[in-house]
Amino acid sequence: MKRDIQAILAEMTLEEKAGMCSGLDFWRLKGVERLGIPSIMVTDGPHGLRKQQGGTDHLGIFESVPATCFPSAAGMASSWDRELIGRVGIALGEECQAEDIAVLLGPGANIKRSPLCGRNFEYFSEDPYLSSEIAASHINGVQSQGVGTSLKHFAVNNQEHRRMGVDAVVDERTLREIYLASFEGAVRQAQPWTVMSAYNKVNGTYASENAYLLTDILKEEWGHEGLVVTDWGANNNRVDGLAAGQELEMPSSGGVNDRKIVEAVHSGRLSVEVLDRAVERLLELIFRSVDNKKPEAHYDREAHHALARKVAGETMVLLKNDNNLLPLGANKKLAVIGAFAQKPRYQGGGSSHIKPTQIDVPLEEINRLAGDAAAVAHAQGYHADRDDTDDSLLEQAVEAAKGADAAIIFAGLPDRYESEGYDRKHLKMPANQNRLIEAIAGVQSNVVVILLNGSPVEMPWIGQVDSVLEAYLGGQAVGGAIADVLFGTVNPSGKLAETFPVKLSDNPSFLFFPGEGNRVEYREGIFVGYRYYDTKQVKPLFPFGHGLSYTTFVYSDLKLSSAEMLDTDTLHVQVTVQNTGDRAGKEIVQLYVRDKESSVSRPDKELKGFAKVDLQPGEKKTVTLQLNKRSFAYYNVQIKDWHVESGEYEIVIARSSEDTVLSDSLRIQSTVKVKTAVDRTTLLADLMSDPDRAPVVQGLIQSFQSGMGVPMDSDSMKEALGEGMGEMIAEMMKYMPLRSIVSFSQGAFTDEMLDGLLAQLNQL
Amino acid sequence: MKRDIQAILAEMTLEEKAGMCSGLDFWRLKGVERLGIPSIMVTDGPHGLRKQQGGTDHLGIFESVPATCFPSAAGMASSWDRELIGRVGIALGEECQAEDIAVLLGPGANIKRSPLCGRNFEYFSEDPYLSSEIAASHINGVQSQGVGTSLKHFAVNNQEHRRMGVDAVVDERTLREIYLASFEGAVRQAQPWTVMSAYNKVNGTYASENAYLLTDILKEEWGHEGLVVTDWGANNNRVDGLAAGQELEMPSSGGVNDRKIVEAVHSGRLSVEVLDRAVERLLELIFRSVDNKKPEAHYDREAHHALARKVAGETMVLLKNDNNLLPLGANKKLAVIGAFAQKPRYQGGGSSHIKPTQIDVPLEEINRLAGDAAAVAHAQGYHADRDDTDDSLLEQAVEAAKGADAAIIFAGLPDRYESEGYDRKHLKMPANQNRLIEAIAGVQSNVVVILLNGSPVEMPWIGQVDSVLEAYLGGQAVGGAIADVLFGTVNPSGKLAETFPVKLSDNPSFLFFPGEGNRVEYREGIFVGYRYYDTKQVKPLFPFGHGLSYTTFVYSDLKLSSAEMLDTDTLHVQVTVQNTGDRAGKEIVQLYVRDKESSVSRPDKELKGFAKVDLQPGEKKTVTLQLNKRSFAYYNVQIKDWHVESGEYEIVIARSSEDTVLSDSLRIQSTVKVKTAVDRTTLLADLMSDPDRAPVVQGLIQSFQSGMGVPMDSDSMKEALGEGMGEMIAEMMKYMPLRSIVSFSQGAFTDEMLDGLLAQLNQL
Repeated sequence: MKRDIQAILAEMTLEEKAGMCSGLDFWRLKGVERLGIPSIMVTDGPHGLRKQQGGTDHLGIFESVPATCFPSAAGMASSWDRELIGRVGIALGEECQAEDIAVLLGPGANIKRSPLCGRNFEYFSEDPYLSSEIAASHINGVQSQGVGTSLKHFAVNNQEHRRMGVDAVVDERTLREIYLASFEGAVRQAQPWTVMSAYNKVNGTYASENAYLLTDILKEEWGHEGLVVTDWGANNNRVDGLAAGQELEMPSSGGVNDRKIVEAVHSGRLSVEVLDRAVERLLELIFRSVDNKKPEAHYDREAHHALARKVAGETMVLLKNDNNLLPLGANKKLAVIGAFAQKPRYQGGGSSHIKPTQIDVPLEEINRLAGDAAAVAHAQGYHADRDDTDDSLLEQAVEAAKGADAAIIFAGLPDRYESEGYDRKHLKMPANQNRLIEAIAGVQSNVVVILLNGSPVEMPWIGQVDSVLEAYLGGQAVGGAIADVLFGTVNPSGKLAETFPVKLSDNPSFLFFPGEGNRVEYREGIFVGYRYYDTKQVKPLFPFGHGLSYTTFVYSDLKLSSAEMLDTDTLHVQVTVQNTGDRAGKEIVQLYVRDKESSVSRPDKELKGFAKVDLQPGEKKTVTLQLNKRSFAYYNVQIKDWHVESGEYEIVIARSSEDTVLSDSLRIQSTVKVKTAVDRTTLLADLMSDPDRAPVVQGLIQSFQSGMGVPMDSDSMKEALGEGMGEMIAEMMKYMPLRSIVSFSQGAFTDEMLDGLLAQLNQL
Repeated sequence: MKRDIQAILAEMTLEEKAGMCSGLDFWRLKGVERLGIPSIMVTDGPHGLRKQQGGTDHLGIFESVPATCFPSAAGMASSWDRELIGRVGIALGEECQAEDIAVLLGPGANIKRSPLCGRNFEYFSEDPYLSSEIAASHINGVQSQGVGTSLKHFAVNNQEHRRMGVDAVVDERTLREIYLASFEGAVRQAQPWTVMSAYNKVNGTYASENAYLLTDILKEEWGHEGLVVTDWGANNNRVDGLAAGQELEMPSSGGVNDRKIVEAVHSGRLSVEVLDRAVERLLELIFRSVDNKKPEAHYDREAHHALARKVAGETMVLLKNDNNLLPLGANKKLAVIGAFAQKPRYQGGGSSHIKPTQIDVPLEEINRLAGDAAAVAHAQGYHADRDDTDDSLLEQAVEAAKGADAAIIFAGLPDRYESEGYDRKHLKMPANQNRLIEAIAGVQSNVVVILLNGSPVEMPWIGQVDSVLEAYLGGQAVGGAIADVLFGTVNPSGKLAETFPVKLSDNPSFLFFPGEGNRVEYREGIFVGYRYYDTKQVKPLFPFGHGLSYTTFVYSDLKLSSAEMLDTDTLHVQVTVQNTGDRAGKEIVQLYVRDKESSVSRPDKELKGFAKVDLQPGEKKTVTLQLNKRSFAYYNVQIKDWHVESGEYEIVIARSSEDTVLSDSLRIQSTVKVKTAVDRTTLLADLMSDPDRAPVVQGLIQSFQSGMGVPMDSDSMKEALGEGMGEMIAEMMKYMPLRSIVSFSQGAFTDEMLDGLLAQLNQL
């Protein structure tokens, strides 16, 4: 329905407008009955719906209605499957329609700076490109159903520790290339109805009142048309926030901040135009929701559960599979070990925690698929709520494993190890689980470890087991999906969206996480995740992009559409993948770009394209990936824009960030001239490398050298300064400032002459 | 002689005073004849005298008079021997007196941030304590002879790349704890007559015009009484420099800057008092030199050469000695291989390059000590001035090695690989040398590699040779000293003053060295050298403090004078070392301090004491080391002072930073209260951890919780948020800001009430 928002706005009193800028209660926006503006409801996400039933507490944490629990974001990203995540989004949208929810609060696109962040299970990746692509698919899916999303937590909210106080200090280039890029792609591609501002400060200013982030970048640069909602309780100064582009405070402030807004308009501190613009966006959201409402909506719980199982199967990552232990053959004697086999951990703690419609129990699903002639024994092995070993449980498990053909150990992280609200202090699994795995491996040579966890763990036992399947927090159907993978009904195709380090101290943020007091400095800069491991040559336990299959793939015929191009051109990259095994499977083709020479520090390589390819045995497909200026660019803080330096770039096709398959190079010519002002302190080298300016200074340098009375390659000089002096003098000369010409000329080249030279150079 | 400096100053014209503030020429200060102020001469150091004979060039790089070339600083520091380095200083002072030099330009106390820095051979260590101790000994030695020193390059000059343009951006804590600490100890203990300001900028301001460094810290905090001289050509704006505490510009500006100073006084831009204070310090220096002049001074070249040999022997570090291959037994058949055996590299390139009085040739010295029945064959092996292999030289070397009892390979870095003026790009030795070592190791199982180099190299062949002796750039007597160590005349006792990494990318500054354009950020912060390797658990090739001996030492009886003390107390640490071998030797006892719990990020441990102990076979000595507040402190940027947090500290006695021998703990109680202002954004956790403020907020939190209607440990809450929610809620509460009380109370707790609370808390 077409409405005249401006007309409605004109009818509203100042108090009504101010009132719209904060919640009615914990989950609802305010309406204005007399003007036909309804109150709409939002609810937590992102991998399921947490709609509160009652109104019993102000934190809104009790008793939600049942909803399908899909795999958490960490798993979703491991699918690298845009289409599949779009289907998850559609299903979530359907459930929102059925429950009369206008906006689902998610997805989260924060970058996994440290594996310790307690909320990493809710985030996608350490890589901004992968994260933004998956986020965009998720958003597009939900919003295709007429339900809004809230892309969160904008921005630089990469830890739970002191999240309401901490100031994330991050340099502009890193902000742009890593932390914002993850949001940028999602906003540009999917226009989330809302973006949620984070609790923390970014470079000194709260995200919720950060005009640079909310207005300059989000609204103006990226063209975000929706509104910005605070994270719950993130509002600091409401009037500053409104002025900065923060339209909606949640939850309610009990009217306190509504009055402050009114006062600020009265006093002239806040212009009414700012308020109007905010209310306009609020009204657009409300009516968009109203117009898209499907009053009779309902969803098919069984179908959504089946989708959850399919998705979980696609998100699992087969980390290790020596001797092709998996898939398990038919009719084996299996020992299924671990408390998680009966009570799996399938979602994380905090605001995303939902009440599932049903839960697949892994042990039961294994029993179902194992085959009639199989024997499945179960032993609990450990108590999930304790870290110490229960010797009798351990003993039972060892006995069960001894008599079996293979042992399948369910392990991972219990709830108390990771959650919204706090970060981990280490990457260890509970001691009783590690001890169990080692004990089982001591008596059984066919060991499969299945990990249920939201983020990487150290695996001290990795050399002692054949197979490891990372199931992440796989949602309510994780049990069935694990059985599917174990027995080969599903061929695993997930790949890691994050690096698994050997040990915590290998992580790039280790020395500076979670900061000191209320300040955390992102000193590793752009070197996040594999950008660090690859560049610093630190061997991870499992690299970014890693994941095995039950079949094999061969890559060939890498073709670039051009060997030379302008930075404004588009490059098409073709590569062929063949399934050379005897089982259908999916391969994730990863394309990285390497800048072979650069004036700024760049990572070894960066992910700039990917595609998931489904292949029957023997089948071959050619994938085409498209690269543009942004694929090659770094953020140049001098020109405040993305910039591609002229030079050679390598296109790398890889199975993981560590495992390069094919590569080819091209030359890119920049169409942008970056000019720097010349002053007395400009170094000669910087003038010599500028083709316009070099000729002017060339002559000067010669007269300068002869003025010093130094024949540059004399034997006496070598004796005086050492054999290597030629290079030394040349380097010293290159890196002298212009002012040195005045000093060394002993007055022959005057300050006035230098001023003239500067004027001349600055015109070139 | 007592002089009235003030009276002389009063006689001087403005032009004369301004003139004193820059050099007469390249090496001499101006005098004023009519007032009896003589011109004095300074000259390059620091491990020998480079007095220019003629005046043929303006860079002052030709034809110096012969002088004793002592081991370069990298080697000197490896001796860890304060007394010995003091003797080197005395010898240098004697040579200066003999050559009529007033000030020797050195030593250099810059920290080895990256092993790539081209001038690292001239610097002592990656550790500020070790560096400052050795620098102080050096300065005290020279100055005991009535000759001045110039402690350089002040400050944060840790690379040659763009040294005249680069801005070293370093946080205050790192500046204080690492980069300035290395100078601070030397200034406080030894009062160098001059300090030399560096070429680069520090945090945006040229070191030569940096009032914070030159006046606030150097003169006022540390009490430096001497003057500050620019590095040659480092002056940027002379008037700004003078105002900042930069008394002397070198070399001459041809009068240009003298006139600018005069104009600035006339125009009022510079007060004459500032100029007077500078000239006063200049006159004090000149007359101190005059008064200490020894007109008949001369020195004994032979004795100094013998000292150089002794010192070189003490500085060498035996990195590896499998199967006790060294010392070499008598009367062996030796193959001495490598161009460096006949023409050793014994000093570095650049301003420190001197003309030695004589040079020991290693091959000749080996021949001399090998014993009459020994047979010493020589093969050149490689061309020192090329990187590619000469196959016939290689072949000859392999043949020589085949027939010998042992092969002694002289290798390392040629002049062109490291020098003042430019940095290395990698840590590799020339390819022909690496290939030679591997080829020799292929035919000979007893291989000794002797390294002549100024800074660490990668050793791809380390697993293939038994012994490696790091001889650094050992000065003119290095040949004799190597022979002494090879045959056991000298038992090696040097220990590394820097970490040798396995590969360049392991270095903490790797990702950010040498910066981008004119900006280098010291992002690794305080984690320099072993502080990084230990904390990040990166295994080095050879750790800081490592060095082997021909005998063995056993440590026992670690005793702390107290188990509990105030931060203002002094701790005495005793430990006993016994020589348990059958050969006299020296051990370097290293004491590190570990802060076991801290609110700020701290390194795993830090060197805070050391002693070199000379022990006969079987002999035992007890060493006492003294620790004070500074030994336990970090630099607290909030209170702008060194601070020791109350808590437990561990005293670690170690053979190297990696090899801990004994340890014990004590509790320190701080006498300083650090109070932070409370505002709306202060987190509850920060109030709760303050014993004065906690009681006030305790009650508030309880009413806050009940106001939310959330029973903190209910089952329904567990179901809603997951098992781990108890901890989650507690953490969320702890890290909420005070303002949240207003929002969550829905107006019951007003802003006015909060203001009252803030006023109350800020008085506690």
